[in-house]
Amino acid sequence: MKIHASKSHPRYLSNYYRDLLVWGVHKGLTSPQGLIAQGRGETFDYLIGEKTCLFAKKATMAALAVLIDAKHPVISVNGNAAVLVPKDLVKLSQMLKIPLEINLFHKSKQRERKIADYLRKNKATNILLADNAGIPNLSSNRRFISKHGQTIADVVFVPLEDGDRTEHLISMGKKVIAVDLNPLSRTAQKATITIVDNIVRTLPLMIKLYVRLKNTKKEKLEKIIREYNNQTILKEAISHINKYLK
Amino acid sequence: MKIHASKSHPRYLSNYYRDLLVWGVHKGLTSPQGLIAQGRGETFDYLIGEKTCLFAKKATMAALAVLIDAKHPVISVNGNAAVLVPKDLVKLSQMLKIPLEINLFHKSKQRERKIADYLRKNKATNILLADNAGIPNLSSNRRFISKHGQTIADVVFVPLEDGDRTEHLISMGKKVIAVDLNPLSRTAQKATITIVDNIVRTLPLMIKLYVRLKNTKKEKLEKIIREYNNQTILKEAISHINKYLK
Repeated sequence: MKIHASKSHPRYLSNYYRDLLVWGVHKGLTSPQGLIAQGRGETFDYLIGEKTCLFAKKATMAALAVLIDAKHPVISVNGNAAVLVPKDLVKLSQMLKIPLEINLFHKSKQRERKIADYLRKNKATNILLADNAGIPNLSSNRRFISKHGQTIADVVFVPLEDGDRTEHLISMGKKVIAVDLNPLSRTAQKATITIVDNIVRTLPLMIKLYVRLKNTKKEKLEKIIREYNNQTILKEAISHINKYLK
Repeated sequence: MKIHASKSHPRYLSNYYRDLLVWGVHKGLTSPQGLIAQGRGETFDYLIGEKTCLFAKKATMAALAVLIDAKHPVISVNGNAAVLVPKDLVKLSQMLKIPLEINLFHKSKQRERKIADYLRKNKATNILLADNAGIPNLSSNRRFISKHGQTIADVVFVPLEDGDRTEHLISMGKKVIAVDLNPLSRTAQKATITIVDNIVRTLPLMIKLYVRLKNTKKEKLEKIIREYNNQTILKEAISHINKYLK
């Protein structure tokens, strides 16, 4: 992969991930529209200071508690997530023993297969593809889900989604954990737990926190979940951006 | 050109311009990185409410006064601008009788030629390409400018730039008019006049205002310019975003 970003550039990391996604488009893993979505996220990341804030740490902790406590959790993966954090997605999937379900907004069987291959190259073993099972009343391509995955899941972890899928999953009675840099988005507002952070920081943090939490007693996990309030977290994120802008 | 955006979608316009830029990438007019830049702009546009605010109207008025009053003004065009508003760029260039100078960050002779052809297809007659003239002390590809254009220009209109070019043009003694949706960016902060607005709204507004201003007396134009304060405008833009977030 050719990365043009110069290590001496003050915005090296941001440029590095840009180049990575452009590479992903050339390889047929990311959609061109995925690049625009990355840009939207970049602005919000810039407005939260490009770091994992306390509101994101609290949400990440609660997310892990929910995932560990879940019966049938599943991780939903799109093209951007697969290109940005393939190894971390695989690691988390293996640690939690839960499947990676590929779910694309700009649907293409070919791209789906390429993403599956790319995740397998990164040692993924538990991959699901969308089949004919569907989310009721959702017209976009994201309505297609796997009958072994999101259809039976009680918890769906959706790093990098936008649009209407979250609220439909919620209305199907599922818990949704979203990673979304925009605290005002529909996904952020509707999710059970919203991690307002960059996925390239969230996934490594989840892996680290999992090691701390994995042997935690069920009561303790339930306490973390019970005490978590997503509306408060979103307000903290918005107020943080406000302070940054002053 | 294939536009996937549905007219019934509440975010039709935003989706339309996304599809337009993806088309631009396929045609070799826009760089893939240009899509990420579009996404960054989209977020700021969303945060200002996707409309032309008073601070943008005031800046656009001052920008036109400066352009009409200038000796050697020039419009700098990159891939995104050429794809988003080709007809308006050509119209403004013809009304003001000033050249369109193609200036790319992700430089490619082939893309430069394609953009020139595309602008000509949209009836442009006054196009300049970068030659060996250069901006001193600027290492990116944007240092290359035309000796008949930005080298001798007293005013450079740069819709959609980011990075360090604006401050270098300023240090060469030129006035810079920028269209930048991010009021905190280096370009926005360093420009003589910063129009915090979406280029797809700014260019039509400039054309409309030109008709009103073209026969204005020099003293009146100079008064508009003298009374304009870019720092105040930027503060108004930031405060507007803050209110939107509350």
